[in-house]
Amino acid sequence: MGTANPIVGAIEAGGTKFVCAVGSGPGRDMRARAQFATGDDPARLMREVIAWFEGEARTHGPLAAIGVASFGPVDLDPRSPTYGFITTTPKRGWRGTDVVGPLRRAFPGLPIGFDTDVNGAALGEGRWGAARGLDDFIYVTVGTGIGGGGVARGKLLHGLVHPEMGHFPMPVLDGDAFRGSCAIHGRCWEGLCAGPAIAARAGRPAEELAPDDPAWDYLTRYMGHALATLTYVLSPRRIIVGGSVRKAGQLGEAEFFARTRRHLRAVLNGYIASPALEEPGIDRFVVPPELGDDAGVCGAIALAHDALAAARGG
Amino acid sequence: MGTANPIVGAIEAGGTKFVCAVGSGPGRDMRARAQFATGDDPARLMREVIAWFEGEARTHGPLAAIGVASFGPVDLDPRSPTYGFITTTPKRGWRGTDVVGPLRRAFPGLPIGFDTDVNGAALGEGRWGAARGLDDFIYVTVGTGIGGGGVARGKLLHGLVHPEMGHFPMPVLDGDAFRGSCAIHGRCWEGLCAGPAIAARAGRPAEELAPDDPAWDYLTRYMGHALATLTYVLSPRRIIVGGSVRKAGQLGEAEFFARTRRHLRAVLNGYIASPALEEPGIDRFVVPPELGDDAGVCGAIALAHDALAAARGG
Repeated sequence: MGTANPIVGAIEAGGTKFVCAVGSGPGRDMRARAQFATGDDPARLMREVIAWFEGEARTHGPLAAIGVASFGPVDLDPRSPTYGFITTTPKRGWRGTDVVGPLRRAFPGLPIGFDTDVNGAALGEGRWGAARGLDDFIYVTVGTGIGGGGVARGKLLHGLVHPEMGHFPMPVLDGDAFRGSCAIHGRCWEGLCAGPAIAARAGRPAEELAPDDPAWDYLTRYMGHALATLTYVLSPRRIIVGGSVRKAGQLGEAEFFARTRRHLRAVLNGYIASPALEEPGIDRFVVPPELGDDAGVCGAIALAHDALAAARGG
Repeated sequence: MGTANPIVGAIEAGGTKFVCAVGSGPGRDMRARAQFATGDDPARLMREVIAWFEGEARTHGPLAAIGVASFGPVDLDPRSPTYGFITTTPKRGWRGTDVVGPLRRAFPGLPIGFDTDVNGAALGEGRWGAARGLDDFIYVTVGTGIGGGGVARGKLLHGLVHPEMGHFPMPVLDGDAFRGSCAIHGRCWEGLCAGPAIAARAGRPAEELAPDDPAWDYLTRYMGHALATLTYVLSPRRIIVGGSVRKAGQLGEAEFFARTRRHLRAVLNGYIASPALEEPGIDRFVVPPELGDDAGVCGAIALAHDALAAARGG
């Protein structure tokens, strides 16, 4: 794999760090990588990133394209004057930042792919990871925040803006008095299941919680409800759950997934008839990313390849 | 419009009635239509429908294709041995019914399009109605039950099965003790907002409720939450709300939409920055179907046209 793919540049643009790579795919096909702190000076960071790409291109040959999988919200509308911008983020220094523009100016004529971090990760998992061969699937990250991207009928989900899957309203489990930790919505999915929500409920960080702490039970039950919502709305063939929360500290990743799957089945309550939602199919329906923490940067490589293909096709 | 489109057959297959049409589009382009009670004998009904099409074809010329927009759940996977079947419905006589097969045998070689009733309605509204020119939108019907279909990046939503948007979990409004009316999920969207849910909450049919009945307030507030969920997960450019509940009896359709839009904005709480979600854009974001109660049968015409185009293209 990968030998047929040209060498491209990739940027996983996160709120904490930018992970950059040069290569044609995951693993051995990733020729070089580097990290840069996101900071609050986008112009300086973009200059550093561009200089790094230029240096790597001297070693590995000219880049055929660049892909960017970015934190958001971002503008994905090619007809918009702010296409390729990070738009309304509260992150200091980054509101209204043109990410694609500096790359276009530094590499004139080079195809540049741009999408959300989670759509990028979805694309990476679709090409090389847990969603290979599937046309309809979802990638969610559950960490400091919650976000989701996905592919429907073979295309990344865009629309009015792009999905913001972490913020839909959630039910109340009987007896649960926790009001949620989302500053904007309280008890949305992110307000119940992101890392800060677990800590706020338990009164201490998730890593310190014993395996029998009730916070794990709330977490996995609410995860079941959230994945049921995604299943009803989008009818995916698979849901990939990435991000740090799935590692679930002393509870462990295997138990997190086992409980989340069990609660998902309980919420669906047999309404959708599919072997994928029964034992043992459910174990392949809700899965961790195969690319692990490289899903995002590999997704950026895939975005670059798609931009190149589009440029050649068009 | 429509003169470039050939004459096709269309079936809106509902749980109560089958609405059939022959034509090339809505309005004057619909040359003939008929209704048949769905009943519990699918073989007999399909014979009647086929005989009707054969009769109309003698008047209007041979049909170029047939489209079916069906109640479900249905099998949409072309590689499945039960493609074109209604699968696990509780409706008497209809479980495991092959809908496409009898049409194929009666009209050998004719392209036949098949999808869910709500995907069909979405397609109809996309071609001739409230979603013209949009690549990303949702059609939901809120009536005896709730269902939703939609288009993402220009393609109808399929997947593991197909969306079942009526059944995702819902939040609890402060002080609401109503347990919901869905036999399978209790307080899912359908269990809170479908016609039977309104009647169960109020203790009498929706038509009898005064405009200031608290049931209308609950209905529109829960509609706001449900449409927020769809907005977060799919990022549509428009949500079309069809079905009988939107007419809202003594409250009235205009007031139903005004309140639903207001509550949607309150739930979103400004998180997604888009003029479409602010005043006055929101009035074009949540809208009734332009084709009214003909969205489904017009959608079946559009499914037939798409099946014909696919057959010619392939």
